[in-house]
Amino acid sequence: MSKMEKYIKKLNDLDFSDMYNNDFILTWEKTDEELEAVFTVADALRHMREENISTKIFDSGLGISLFRDNSTRTRFSFASACNLLGLEVQDLDEGKSQIAHGETVRETANMISFMADVVGIRDDMYIGKGNTYIRNFSKYVEQGNEDGILEQRPSIVNLQCDIDHPTQSMSDMLHLIHEFGGVENLKGKKIAMTWAYSPSYGKPLSVPQGIIGLMTRMGMDVVLAHPEGYEVMSDIEEVAKDNAAKSGGSFTKTNSMEEAFKDADIVYPKSWAPFVAMEKRTELYGNGDSEGIKALEKELLAQNKQHQDWQCTEDLMSLTKDGKALYMHCLPADITGVSCDIGEVDASVFDRYRVPLYKEASFKPYIIAAMILLSKVKDPAKCFAELEEKNTQRQYK
Amino acid sequence: MSKMEKYIKKLNDLDFSDMYNNDFILTWEKTDEELEAVFTVADALRHMREENISTKIFDSGLGISLFRDNSTRTRFSFASACNLLGLEVQDLDEGKSQIAHGETVRETANMISFMADVVGIRDDMYIGKGNTYIRNFSKYVEQGNEDGILEQRPSIVNLQCDIDHPTQSMSDMLHLIHEFGGVENLKGKKIAMTWAYSPSYGKPLSVPQGIIGLMTRMGMDVVLAHPEGYEVMSDIEEVAKDNAAKSGGSFTKTNSMEEAFKDADIVYPKSWAPFVAMEKRTELYGNGDSEGIKALEKELLAQNKQHQDWQCTEDLMSLTKDGKALYMHCLPADITGVSCDIGEVDASVFDRYRVPLYKEASFKPYIIAAMILLSKVKDPAKCFAELEEKNTQRQYK
Amino acid sequence: MSKMEKYIKKLNDLDFSDMYNNDFILTWEKTDEELEAVFTVADALRHMREENISTKIFDSGLGISLFRDNSTRTRFSFASACNLLGLEVQDLDEGKSQIAHGETVRETANMISFMADVVGIRDDMYIGKGNTYIRNFSKYVEQGNEDGILEQRPSIVNLQCDIDHPTQSMSDMLHLIHEFGGVENLKGKKIAMTWAYSPSYGKPLSVPQGIIGLMTRMGMDVVLAHPEGYEVMSDIEEVAKDNAAKSGGSFTKTNSMEEAFKDADIVYPKSWAPFVAMEKRTELYGNGDSEGIKALEKELLAQNKQHQDWQCTEDLMSLTKDGKALYMHCLPADITGVSCDIGEVDASVFDRYRVPLYKEASFKPYIIAAMILLSKVKDPAKCFAELEEKNTQRQYK
Repeated sequence: MSKMEKYIKKLNDLDFSDMYNNDFILTWEKTDEELEAVFTVADALRHMREENISTKIFDSGLGISLFRDNSTRTRFSFASACNLLGLEVQDLDEGKSQIAHGETVRETANMISFMADVVGIRDDMYIGKGNTYIRNFSKYVEQGNEDGILEQRPSIVNLQCDIDHPTQSMSDMLHLIHEFGGVENLKGKKIAMTWAYSPSYGKPLSVPQGIIGLMTRMGMDVVLAHPEGYEVMSDIEEVAKDNAAKSGGSFTKTNSMEEAFKDADIVYPKSWAPFVAMEKRTELYGNGDSEGIKALEKELLAQNKQHQDWQCTEDLMSLTKDGKALYMHCLPADITGVSCDIGEVDASVFDRYRVPLYKEASFKPYIIAAMILLSKVKDPAKCFAELEEKNTQRQYK
Repeated sequence: MSKMEKYIKKLNDLDFSDMYNNDFILTWEKTDEELEAVFTVADALRHMREENISTKIFDSGLGISLFRDNSTRTRFSFASACNLLGLEVQDLDEGKSQIAHGETVRETANMISFMADVVGIRDDMYIGKGNTYIRNFSKYVEQGNEDGILEQRPSIVNLQCDIDHPTQSMSDMLHLIHEFGGVENLKGKKIAMTWAYSPSYGKPLSVPQGIIGLMTRMGMDVVLAHPEGYEVMSDIEEVAKDNAAKSGGSFTKTNSMEEAFKDADIVYPKSWAPFVAMEKRTELYGNGDSEGIKALEKELLAQNKQHQDWQCTEDLMSLTKDGKALYMHCLPADITGVSCDIGEVDASVFDRYRVPLYKEASFKPYIIAAMILLSKVKDPAKCFAELEEKNTQRQYK
Repeated sequence: MSKMEKYIKKLNDLDFSDMYNNDFILTWEKTDEELEAVFTVADALRHMREENISTKIFDSGLGISLFRDNSTRTRFSFASACNLLGLEVQDLDEGKSQIAHGETVRETANMISFMADVVGIRDDMYIGKGNTYIRNFSKYVEQGNEDGILEQRPSIVNLQCDIDHPTQSMSDMLHLIHEFGGVENLKGKKIAMTWAYSPSYGKPLSVPQGIIGLMTRMGMDVVLAHPEGYEVMSDIEEVAKDNAAKSGGSFTKTNSMEEAFKDADIVYPKSWAPFVAMEKRTELYGNGDSEGIKALEKELLAQNKQHQDWQCTEDLMSLTKDGKALYMHCLPADITGVSCDIGEVDASVFDRYRVPLYKEASFKPYIIAAMILLSKVKDPAKCFAELEEKNTQRQYK
C-alpha cells in the first residue's frame, strides 16, 4: 500500500464530520478522531508537496491573517498554508486598519470577509480578551453568511489566543509522533512542561496551557513545573486532569525543575508570565494606567530574577531518561550567552537539538493547512485521491 | 432563460465599447449603458461565485493598490476583486515607498506598472489634488505603454478622490437596484443625501458628491440637505442638475434635515466637511502651516457642534415614507451611544438596518471587479459564456 | 526561425548547468555563458508575455522578499518577477519581524523558508555586512534542506548588497544589448561610470561596483571617474582589471569627469559615498555612536559640496561621441532644478533620455525572473518549448 493509500484509508476510518464548515479554536473542543484527522491530513499534504503534486483546492479566494501582535513565524506559517491550498493572503494589522473595540468587531468581521475562505487570528495579549474576540468574530461571520451578506462562511483558525495555541501544540505533537514513530508510542512517556528563566517578561501562557491541554490526551505522563506564583489558568489544569484520567496518562504539578526533568522522555522548558500578573496587566491596560504598567513590569522582572536557577542546563538534561530527553521549544528561545546573558537554555543543549527544533517548527504550515482543508472539504479522502490522480506538478522541473 | 443567459443577453444589448482599455474615474464621464454594463457584470460575477464557478480571467498579473490614506475596507474590497479575477495585489503606501510630488509621479507610475494590469488609487485627502493625481497617473502609463516601456497599459480605478467615490456610489446604486427590484423601480423615488453631525471633522466630500452625481441619473428625486456653510463643490451640483433634467428626476437643495426626510424612500445621512474649509486646509498643508491647521480644526469642530441636531433619529425616520425609508451609509458610521456620545445616527436606527447596510457594502468587491473586467475584456458576454462552459470550480467541494 | 526558436536554440548552445539549484549573488562568480543564459531567458520571458503566453512554472509556492532597506522599485520588480512565474510574494521587513543579529540569522532563514522557492535579499546599508548576510542565509537554507527541515532549497537572489547590485547591472547590460543591437556590438564601446554630485550622501557603492565588475567583461572600454577620496572597494577594481584583460577591453580610472565623458558611447553619472567613509559609518553604527554618525554625515556633506561641479550637464554631454552618448541611471536621479537645486544631472539631459531610462528599468523584473527560472528549471529550453506548445493565455482577451 502506498503512503497516500494509507493516509486515505486512515481518513476513511475516522469520524470528523463536525469539522466541516467549522472553526479550530481549542484542541480540547475536538475529539481524538478529529485531532488524528488533522495529523493525517498534515502528513498527506507534506507528502504530496515532497512528491511535487499540487494540493491547490482553491482556484481563487482569500486567507485573512488578523494579528494583534507581531509574529514573523506564525505569519509565514499561515501564509505558507494558504498558498499551499491556493488562497492568497491578505494581512490585517491593527496599525494598518481602523479596527476598534466592542460593536465594531461585528462590522470589521463582515467587511473583510466578503471573499474570505479562512481567517487566522492571533490575539494573545490580554487575558480574557483574545479567545472572546475570536469567538465573537466567528459568531459574526456565521450570522453574516446566514443573512446573505457573505457568500461563504470563512473558517476561523486560532493562531494563538490567551487560552490556547493549537497550531503550536498540534505541530509539537506531530513532531513527537514522528520522533517516537507513532502516536501509540507516546503512551506512558514522561513530558516535562516547565517554566524557565528569561530576562524578558510577559510571555504568553498559551504555550504551556496548550501543551498540558493536548499532551494529556495521549496517555502521556505530563508534569507541569514552575516556581510558586507562576500558575497557569486553573481551568486548563482541570482540562489536563480530565484528559489524563480519560487517556490513562497522568497530570502532576511540581515546583521543582529537577523533579520534572527526572527520567523525562521529553522536556519543554519555556518562560511565561504568571496568570494573575497578566490579569492585572490587562486591567491596567484597560484603565490606561501607564504608571501602573511600568510598576508591574519592574515587579515582574524582579520576581523573575529570583528564579534564575530555572535554566535548562546540561546538568539538568543529564537527569532525564538516559540523559537524552527530547528538548522542545516553540522558538525563539532565550539562549544563555547567545541571545541573552542568562536565559532559558544552555547554548550547548540548544545547539545539540537544533535540527529537531527546526523540524518541530516545520510542521506548523502543514497543521494550519490541514485545519483549513478539513473545514472546507467535505470528503478529504476523495479529494486526496483526485489530486493524486490529477497529478498537477507544483513546480515545473 | 437561466440567470447567466439573461446577463449575457443584457450585455449583448448594451454599448460599452469605450470602456475597453480605459479607466473608471468619474461616474458622470460614463454613459448610462456603460453604468448598466458595470451593474450587469457585477451581478454576473457574484452569481458565478455563488455557483462556485471560477471567474479568473488572468493567469498571472498584478493589481496595484496605491493608497494615500489608510482604509481597511476599500483595500480589502480591491484585493478581493483582484483575487476574484486572478490578479495578485501589491500594495504601495506612501510610508513604504519613495513616492514624492510633481515630476516623480511620472516615474513612479512607470516603475510600478511593468506588470500591472490595474492600479486602484485612493487619494481623497486634499481638494484639487486627488483627481489630478489620478489623471496624471493615467496619462503617464498610457504614454509608457506607447513608448514601449510597459508591455500593457494598466487600467486605473478611482478608489476615492476629492471629487468622486465611484466604487462607493456604484455599490450603493446596485444595492438600491436589488432592494427595489430593478433600476426601473427607482424612477420617482425620493432619496435624501443629508449632512449629519459627527464629533470628528474633515470627512471627505466625495461620498455626497458621488451620490448626487449618480442618483440623479435614474429619474430619482434627489435632495441634498446640509446646514449653511457645508456646501459641496458647485461643479458637482451642476452635474446633478443636468443629470436630473435629462433623466426626468429632480435635484433640490435644502438646509432642513426634516424637509429632506419628509416622505423620503431612501435616506443617506452622513457627515462631511465644508468644501471651502477643505480648500483652506489643503492650502495650509501645502504651506506646512501646522499652527493654522490646528486653528482650523478647532474652528471646524466648533462649527460642527452648532449642528448637533442633525442626527438621524427615530423621530426623523418616522417622517419618511411610511416611516420605513431605506437607511444607507458608506460605513463606518458614528453611532450615538456606541462609537461616540452624539453621532450621525441613533443606535436603534442603525441596528434595524444592519443587514441591508452590510449588504450595501458587500457589492463593492463585485463593482470593482466589474470595472476591471470591462476595461480588460473586449467581449465580456463571450467571456462569461466561456467561463460557464468551462465551469472550473472556484473551490474543491 | 521564430523568435522563440532562436531563444531555445541559443539556450541549447550554452552551458549553464551550475546555475540549477544555485544562487545569484555576484556577477563575477558567473561564467560568460551563464550571464548570456540570463539575458536569453529574460528576453524569452518578455517575448512570451508580449505574446500573452503564460510563463507560470509554479502552481503554488512563495517568493520571500527580505529587505533591510526600503525600496519601492526593487520590491515591485521582485514581486513582478515572482508573479510572472507563479510565486506569491511574502514580504519580510525588519520593522514587521523579530529578525535579529548573529546566530538568529540561521533560525530566521529556516523559519521563513518552509515553503519558499526563492528569497530575494536587499542588504546594502553596511559595508562588510550585506554580502556576508546573504551568504550566511544561503548556507543555512542549504543546510536546512539537507537536514530535512526544508522540503526545498530556496534559491537566493541578491537584490543589492554592499558589494554588487547584480539585478541592476544585468538590467543595465540587457538595455545596452538592445540599444546597440547585440552584445557583439558592445566591443570597443566606451562607457563612463562617473561619480556625480548629490545633495544627499551615503548612496550605496554597489551600483558603480556592479557596473565596472560587469561591463568590463564585454570588451568595452570602461572608465571609472570620481573625485579623489571617492574610491570604490579596491577588490572590485581588481575584478574589473582582470575582466578587461580577459575580454580584450580596458579598465581605466580618472579624477576628471570631462576626461571620462570625452568620446564616450555611454555615460552613467551617479552619486555614491566614499568607501572608507562607509566603513567608518558601519563601525559607528555598530558602536551605537549617534554623535559620531551625525559628525560624519556633516563632514561627508561638506566633502560632497566641494565637488558640485561633477554634474552631467549639456556641456559635458556635448563632449561625448557625436554629443549623443547614451545616458544611463539606476533611478531615481537627483535632477537639477527638479528634485533638488543642484544634482547629478541637468533636467534637459534627463528629459531627453527619459524613455530609454525607463526602458532600462523595465528589464529588471525579467532579469530577476530569469535568475529564478535558471535556478529552478533544469532544462529551460525544453520548458519554453512546452510553455509555447501549451499556450495558456496570460490574460483572457
